[in-house]
Amino acid sequence: MRIVFSIGDLNGIGPEVILKSFQKLRETGHSFLVAGSYKAMEYYRKRLDLPVELELVNDAAALSGLCTPHCGVLPVLSVAEPETISPGTVSADSGRIAMLSVAAAAELCRSGICDALVTAPINKEAVALAGYTESGHTGFLGKIFGVSSPTMMFFDPVTELRVALATIHVPLAEVPGRIREMDLTGFLENLARSLKTDFAIALPRMAVLGLNPHASDGGIMGSEEKEVIAPAIASLAGRLQVEGPFPADGFFGAERYRKFDMVVAMYHDQGLLPFKVLAFDTGVNVTLGLPIVRTSPDHGTSFDIAGSGKASERSCCEAALLALRIVRNRKQTERSS
Amino acid sequence: MRIVFSIGDLNGIGPEVILKSFQKLRETGHSFLVAGSYKAMEYYRKRLDLPVELELVNDAAALSGLCTPHCGVLPVLSVAEPETISPGTVSADSGRIAMLSVAAAAELCRSGICDALVTAPINKEAVALAGYTESGHTGFLGKIFGVSSPTMMFFDPVTELRVALATIHVPLAEVPGRIREMDLTGFLENLARSLKTDFAIALPRMAVLGLNPHASDGGIMGSEEKEVIAPAIASLAGRLQVEGPFPADGFFGAERYRKFDMVVAMYHDQGLLPFKVLAFDTGVNVTLGLPIVRTSPDHGTSFDIAGSGKASERSCCEAALLALRIVRNRKQTERSS
Repeated sequence: MRIVFSIGDLNGIGPEVILKSFQKLRETGHSFLVAGSYKAMEYYRKRLDLPVELELVNDAAALSGLCTPHCGVLPVLSVAEPETISPGTVSADSGRIAMLSVAAAAELCRSGICDALVTAPINKEAVALAGYTESGHTGFLGKIFGVSSPTMMFFDPVTELRVALATIHVPLAEVPGRIREMDLTGFLENLARSLKTDFAIALPRMAVLGLNPHASDGGIMGSEEKEVIAPAIASLAGRLQVEGPFPADGFFGAERYRKFDMVVAMYHDQGLLPFKVLAFDTGVNVTLGLPIVRTSPDHGTSFDIAGSGKASERSCCEAALLALRIVRNRKQTERSS
Repeated sequence: MRIVFSIGDLNGIGPEVILKSFQKLRETGHSFLVAGSYKAMEYYRKRLDLPVELELVNDAAALSGLCTPHCGVLPVLSVAEPETISPGTVSADSGRIAMLSVAAAAELCRSGICDALVTAPINKEAVALAGYTESGHTGFLGKIFGVSSPTMMFFDPVTELRVALATIHVPLAEVPGRIREMDLTGFLENLARSLKTDFAIALPRMAVLGLNPHASDGGIMGSEEKEVIAPAIASLAGRLQVEGPFPADGFFGAERYRKFDMVVAMYHDQGLLPFKVLAFDTGVNVTLGLPIVRTSPDHGTSFDIAGSGKASERSCCEAALLALRIVRNRKQTERSS
């Protein structure tokens, strides 16, 4: 299998965590590739004195001529090259290259040259400066593949905790309206399908969190549980194992998540607050619902430590390993169906 | 010092955790008292075979005649007695007795007979059945003492993590409006005052979380950070050490809370999700802004295990120890001012 990394913001820790991850990943026997800037990869390799050999590739067709992964060389497809590299600074140029790299890497997966995409972190401000209206990977990839609402899921390989978000990057004030408008039943069905296909869980058990404090305490604080969430869960009875809506704080406090294959949070912080506390530096972000496999580390560009060599590659490495696992599971499902 | 426990819902785990806590607390040399039902306390003492001697007290005046704490006897002020005791069931009668106990215990603190109140958990449904419109302790005590908006804070004695909530038991849809309407600056000033008086922290460092995902990412997702939260923080510059607004998930994920004496969350689940994951069974709930000292365990009535002897007294015990600590700190502040 071949995994492509999109370089992310080249002034952030993306190139560093890719280089460090590759040192471990090359032992897997699979092939890896970076889509982005050769100049930036070489800059960080030298600056941090990392024992990785890079190979410049100017177009995708050249990939087939590369030697096997056992050479230990990391090929870099040059998508665009920056004028300058300044670790820790926001720039339109690096925002532009970051997004061009994602698009190029997505294309490599669509065409079958690569099997999965691992995206290094981008900087939303830099991306906006570069003129992109879609500032996140999930929405950007959704547009590329014509998927209206891909799902953001987080996975921790240590605890096997999976958290999916019903809404993602929307102002908190808009969350209740979105929950009322969306097809929650269909959303849950899609999640169950992904758990089967991507994670090889035949009968997934899913837990749904309430929107309001204490899941509204029987309607005392909010009505979304009674009017929207509970009916969606009830409509799946007999077909899928879905329980809830649970009061979110008590659910995590009492470690009830251990009994489920997936926890469905209603909004960004409700899912990510407990996830980031529990997953430390091993959490991985996965996009569900795309025709391609896409994962990413769950950290940001960390401009404060960019170029210092202090970044941990743990999450990026886990993201690549999870991508390999999902590709394997999908192939298995295709064969058996 | 003398601490009074309100009994909580007598069909829940309240009486059990009070009895178990007292076995440890009597070693402190301080006095303890239960306001509630003697019958219920005696029922659980016998049922769970706990080595605690109870003493029936029919009115507060009799308290002065009681022997010193070293006798190891736990006095119970009979506020009202139930017709039946049925662990694990919701009843108007137990809801009524729970609230009468809180009111009686609050009165004992107001009059100076007791120094602090520790409230055992109540059941919101039972309280509503009993005809109370204010279903939580914090609001109920606020009404008793004429404090319009007491603050709910959580404290973990193990990590010294303190989390205060800007809004409490309101539907999520109402949170953004409340944040816009409230006097956030005054709220932060009051918190700083409580940290000085109640926790003896001379120069408290406070962190404020954003309302929106990624604290709005510079205004891309929501405007409350820019329009309300950041200005409130800025207005305190030079007077108090307040930082933020921080993206909530990253703040907790990177353990930045360790550098602050208090974290201010904008809403219930934003504060309690990370708190309950981090504090396990040692978390304590504290009400700030009341003329009396009030703490409570941060768990609920746990009807599923009521009467089984399985309840952990850890949080209740910590709540009493924290109450003693706050009383001591307040007395010290009074002396030195």
